Amino acid sequence: MTHVGTDPVELSLNQATTRPYPLTKTAEEAMRAGIRHIGLWIEPVEAIGIARTQQLLNDTGLSVSSVCRTGFLADKEGAELRSALDGVKRALDLSREVGSPMLTLIAGGLPAHDRSIQHAEVRLRAAIEELEPYARDAGVRLALEPLHPLFVGTRSIVTTIAQALRIIADFPEDTVGLLIDAYATSWDSRFHDDVLAAGPRIAGYQVSDFALPLPGPENMNGRLFPGDGDIDFAPLTASIRRAGYTGPIEVEIFNDDIWKLPLETIIDRTVAGFNRCVSESLNELERQSP
Amino acid sequence: MTHVGTDPVELSLNQATTRPYPLTKTAEEAMRAGIRHIGLWIEPVEAIGIARTQQLLNDTGLSVSSVCRTGFLADKEGAELRSALDGVKRALDLSREVGSPMLTLIAGGLPAHDRSIQHAEVRLRAAIEELEPYARDAGVRLALEPLHPLFVGTRSIVTTIAQALRIIADFPEDTVGLLIDAYATSWDSRFHDDVLAAGPRIAGYQVSDFALPLPGPENMNGRLFPGDGDIDFAPLTASIRRAGYTGPIEVEIFNDDIWKLPLETIIDRTVAGFNRCVSESLNELERQSP
Repeated sequence: MTHVGTDPVELSLNQATTRPYPLTKTAEEAMRAGIRHIGLWIEPVEAIGIARTQQLLNDTGLSVSSVCRTGFLADKEGAELRSALDGVKRALDLSREVGSPMLTLIAGGLPAHDRSIQHAEVRLRAAIEELEPYARDAGVRLALEPLHPLFVGTRSIVTTIAQALRIIADFPEDTVGLLIDAYATSWDSRFHDDVLAAGPRIAGYQVSDFALPLPGPENMNGRLFPGDGDIDFAPLTASIRRAGYTGPIEVEIFNDDIWKLPLETIIDRTVAGFNRCVSESLNELERQSP
Repeated sequence: MTHVGTDPVELSLNQATTRPYPLTKTAEEAMRAGIRHIGLWIEPVEAIGIARTQQLLNDTGLSVSSVCRTGFLADKEGAELRSALDGVKRALDLSREVGSPMLTLIAGGLPAHDRSIQHAEVRLRAAIEELEPYARDAGVRLALEPLHPLFVGTRSIVTTIAQALRIIADFPEDTVGLLIDAYATSWDSRFHDDVLAAGPRIAGYQVSDFALPLPGPENMNGRLFPGDGDIDFAPLTASIRRAGYTGPIEVEIFNDDIWKLPLETIIDRTVAGFNRCVSESLNELERQSP
């Protein structure tokens, strides 16, 4: 089901943004800040258990926008692949139990003995083919997320929206979609065209800001609050909405310095950055358009 | 003119690889190591002057595969753009004088006030339109080089081979081409298709190896000797040759640790890495193919 274009832009707090803090504290602090949606991570949900997570969601009124993250399939074969597939199925069960409409799927990188992206795409497509009926039964959408090209060898052979669409094209739209992360894809000169082509395949949308240099480890944790980096989110978000997606927008940040801040500060700066650079900028842009 | 597919693979030493050493020393040491081609940088040529560079090339028998680098146009307008265009024209003169068949053109990033890649592409195309007759008169090909998506905001809005081809499509093939750098583009799932589509547009090809994490400053200087990172060069190089390019292949490395090594060590490791991971691996691959 696509959303109507006049829906207000709503923030969802992805739990990675407050990683050092327990889920209970994050949920309570999010509610205090007026946030209505949360992106859950598997490990902290498992840490407190499904029942307590469900209770917490009830108590706070937070809806779950996504469960992150699973996959890492494209580099695996044999027993290692079977084990990874079982992990995705358990994550689909968990996603259903916490009421998430989707589960983020990370493709996986390249094995040392075969650096062919084409071969890895074949393995990934076969893995999704096995997972798709399970996702359908669970009522949870698999959302393939392109990562930044930096991580092609180590984490995700899927690095563009166009490539993700090509890989999932033959699977049913309602069970296999796409998670678009502005941090990972805003460099792409085809962003706007590919987002429009993705249309109802868009299962979710995440924002965080980009600036060089990217610190270690593995250049993973340089994500910034919206407005603290180089990305202009309004035109990107306008295309996402024009393509039909007007669900919650997750702020997902990995950053060792931000993780050292008090929980309240992280959440307040998330809300402030989102309001200024995503929702207000988008409103401004849409007012200017004919 | 395209080369025949049976040409041997020849190494060219890009001068960035030995950046701390003067051009004279680099050229003499390259000759000692049996290298027949060199990629020159503008500043070290200017440091010793055109006449002395020409003499050095005569004395060593080195041919010039490219002059690096110029451009940084896409983010500029007005007087700043005029000054950058004049810089490219001076670099075209210098390239002609040292006998280089091409000059590397870096697109430039995004200005702070307008993060639209589409707008920047329009500015870049207009700039190339102004430069193209000058390049034709100089007999030097402008070679647009896609950089890694990391640098879209700061150095190059051109991040894929397909995008570069789209930008230069309307310019004459013999004056505006493409420089393909394996480090910058091997993450791209369309690499092989786009290289074949590029065909005679390919003006040059560079290699250096990639591994995470990328060190500072600005994550620029993490390039490694072929074989010390994650890239499998043989299939990439096979596609480059299948597309019709069999000119010299430059090894271009930026790496603060490598720059601390003795000149002889840098050059010997360049030759060894190139032989093992580019030429011998390619021969092996081509023997295996039907």
